[in-house]
Amino acid sequence: MVPSGLGRHLIVEVWGVDPALLDDEARLREMLVEAAKRAGGRVIGVLFHKFKPQGVTGVVAIAESHISIHTWPEYSYAAIDIFTCGSHVDPWEAFRHSVQVLRPKSVSVFEVKRGIIPEGERV
Amino acid sequence: MVPSGLGRHLIVEVWGVDPALLDDEARLREMLVEAAKRAGGRVIGVLFHKFKPQGVTGVVAIAESHISIHTWPEYSYAAIDIFTCGSHVDPWEAFRHSVQVLRPKSVSVFEVKRGIIPEGERV
Repeated sequence: MVPSGLGRHLIVEVWGVDPALLDDEARLREMLVEAAKRAGGRVIGVLFHKFKPQGVTGVVAIAESHISIHTWPEYSYAAIDIFTCGSHVDPWEAFRHSVQVLRPKSVSVFEVKRGIIPEGERV
Repeated sequence: MVPSGLGRHLIVEVWGVDPALLDDEARLREMLVEAAKRAGGRVIGVLFHKFKPQGVTGVVAIAESHISIHTWPEYSYAAIDIFTCGSHVDPWEAFRHSVQVLRPKSVSVFEVKRGIIPEGERV
């Protein structure tokens, strides 16, 4: 069976987040790893970087793709990507956890289907 | 000055790529690091994982966000994300390099503006 879509990718924008939290590498790392687990993902690698004077970049690679965050404390803003594949994983669980921790004043999110096999490529 | 958008994110789907290349962790790592450099990014971390029996996940964190790839050699398919911030970086240079290396039969790409500050949040 060839699936019609291999992955689900949530593009998340959060605004109005506590700047101190957006600059706290340890808490963001804990949040993203926990988000991956709640989604049902298996963590295979974690990469974080703290910028000076401010900002954090973090990626949690999972067997089912990845979750990433980039923060701009000066704008109370973060960009989050939650990309999962496989029917045993639910990216929206990772989303819910992240929002619970970050408590943003506003959120936008949309889901992009990844790996939708073009008609001509079907076997 | 508050910019109207902090980042640019290319969502890239490539089909019809040589499966052997999509399973070659070393070449994909080299490709993604070079793509980051051509875009004008500064590499701050590299995380790759080779799956068994097949498939590669790779993330190159850059000071200006990240570039990632997830491959499905069994479908000759890869999902690539090129997320950059800052006017000195051009994500399309990273896209061009990736396509030159992968030589896919078909490509889809669209650009998502990240970090567009909501009206109510402007200062």
